[in-house]
Amino acid sequence: MRTIDWVDGAVELIDQTRLPDECVTLRITTVDELVDAIRRLAVRGAPALGVAGALGVVLSGGDPDAVARLRAARPTAVNLAWGVDQAAAWLPEGRAAVLEAALRIRDEDIAACLAMGERGADLLTSGALASKAPTSGAFASEASTSGAFASDLPAVDLPDLLAPAGRGLRIMTICNTGGLAAVERGTALGVAQTLHERGLLAEVLALETRPLLQGARLTAWELARMGAPHRLVADGAGPYLLARGGVDAVLVGADRIAANGDTANKIGTYALALGAARAGVPFLVVAPETTIDVATPTGAGIEIEDRGAEEIVTLRGTRLAPEGTDAVNPAFDVTPHDLITAIVTDKRVIRP
Amino acid sequence: MRTIDWVDGAVELIDQTRLPDECVTLRITTVDELVDAIRRLAVRGAPALGVAGALGVVLSGGDPDAVARLRAARPTAVNLAWGVDQAAAWLPEGRAAVLEAALRIRDEDIAACLAMGERGADLLTSGALASKAPTSGAFASEASTSGAFASDLPAVDLPDLLAPAGRGLRIMTICNTGGLAAVERGTALGVAQTLHERGLLAEVLALETRPLLQGARLTAWELARMGAPHRLVADGAGPYLLARGGVDAVLVGADRIAANGDTANKIGTYALALGAARAGVPFLVVAPETTIDVATPTGAGIEIEDRGAEEIVTLRGTRLAPEGTDAVNPAFDVTPHDLITAIVTDKRVIRP
Repeated sequence: MRTIDWVDGAVELIDQTRLPDECVTLRITTVDELVDAIRRLAVRGAPALGVAGALGVVLSGGDPDAVARLRAARPTAVNLAWGVDQAAAWLPEGRAAVLEAALRIRDEDIAACLAMGERGADLLTSGALASKAPTSGAFASEASTSGAFASDLPAVDLPDLLAPAGRGLRIMTICNTGGLAAVERGTALGVAQTLHERGLLAEVLALETRPLLQGARLTAWELARMGAPHRLVADGAGPYLLARGGVDAVLVGADRIAANGDTANKIGTYALALGAARAGVPFLVVAPETTIDVATPTGAGIEIEDRGAEEIVTLRGTRLAPEGTDAVNPAFDVTPHDLITAIVTDKRVIRP
Repeated sequence: MRTIDWVDGAVELIDQTRLPDECVTLRITTVDELVDAIRRLAVRGAPALGVAGALGVVLSGGDPDAVARLRAARPTAVNLAWGVDQAAAWLPEGRAAVLEAALRIRDEDIAACLAMGERGADLLTSGALASKAPTSGAFASEASTSGAFASDLPAVDLPDLLAPAGRGLRIMTICNTGGLAAVERGTALGVAQTLHERGLLAEVLALETRPLLQGARLTAWELARMGAPHRLVADGAGPYLLARGGVDAVLVGADRIAANGDTANKIGTYALALGAARAGVPFLVVAPETTIDVATPTGAGIEIEDRGAEEIVTLRGTRLAPEGTDAVNPAFDVTPHDLITAIVTDKRVIRP
């Protein structure tokens, strides 16, 4: 199954707003339809947006206005603009050349996600991070004492969570970074998938990821499909569960990585990074090289999209707050590089 | 309006599960009805649970089994067991004495919340905390440089949030700690109410507080009723917004405070405390003296209630995750005392 692809002269993509209730494929033939699909998050995830941007240039027929609208459909993920630019560079050569470039980006994403999964799983099971988080599983060389708080709270109150993971690693993640965020396999969740295929995944703790619940709707759906053990967690509980011990690593994706390693990702990532740092749990960013934006020196230069109050005060048609309630709704946050243990790309491991 | 009271021989309380859609008062005449109301959170909030426990002993008629069931209805908030014990001590004196003791607890809560509001507002506007969080408002003696990250992110991307608060303080809070958590006025939100009455409240940023959305449903409702400016925030966004600057203080309630200051409160509080510490924003716990449990030396001894998967995977009848998805759902977390700037009670200010 591919999240997004080029089929018989059109872009086909899974409408992620309708998951997990139903898996519907949209067929898209114009840039405006594609922009709409991107804005309402029918397709989302930095790598998938890169492929969408490139394939959208094919649909544009070279119309500069259409290309510009597509490029600006969402501001935070660098991959969308990157994919548009990569494909648009071939416009002078004609439609066939643009399509060939876009399909190359699609195929490179498939290969990159496979490579990230292997590299991330290798890193987590190599022992290279063991000194950072001696909590359990692969890191269980000694009892957890690195977090000042974790050692204060013995494993008596949440036995299900804090039971030793047994064979394999317990991973915490946020948002959806699986195949639905890319083409075939994912980034951070791709690492969990590789661990699972190697028989080394004990469990994924997936943050539900308010407001749009990509964790509850999409990550849980993907993990169920791959037969990987998993449980959901409210976003506010993530840092506390890290403090309680029993989690071996936090794996997150990225929408844009600044030159100094500061990383924009789904809102809530920064809080998890704070929790991981305090608990001594390794915090890994998993993203393709194309997510690194060398033109942005630090996180201070990353534009953060505010998606408005409606996503906060209503949920799938149900009103959650009194009529007229306003909200602040940053879709992303920026995690400073000092909180990141390592960035795993398709080419290398970076230690900021 | 009182959240809970004794009216004509019965307990009357506002059914908080039906807010903000409708404000319905329940009339309760048996302990089992009261236990049910407590378990399904029709009445919640540590101070209100203390009053409910005391009034429930009147309903029990002295039946030891009923008193024991009531005392164990929820495990984390110390106030429930405390209120039951206070009233039950008068059982040998007869029903009238028990009722008198319970009404005294009700009246003491009303007075305590008023005192906490005054003391907290005094503390926040006194300048005593200024060195901790020089971000804006009362603390705006210099630009924020205390958080390594805050200074990296200038106020360009979320102008509404980061605009100077102008006259008054911008307060962040979680869950509901207003009148609905007590009898007439609240604890942490009571401080915001007092600031508002003094004309010194710029805005409350209320975390929505998943899974049960007490922030979105109850706190927004109370703030609207008092005419106080406020906006909702997804829980995952709280720590990041603190990093961005512009918030003057974080105010939270408490369900149990250990003898060393470690504080159990709504899940998500610990993440906020981590964010406040990193950003140099004062983090205040506001709770009556009765919430301090000297019999519990540290946070390690506080039982944390896991309320099961259903609250996470469904919301007001809507399924959020695929069928069969499991969840970890700790209703509370424990914030270690080193992350707490001050504990404000009805009697004193404690600096852990």
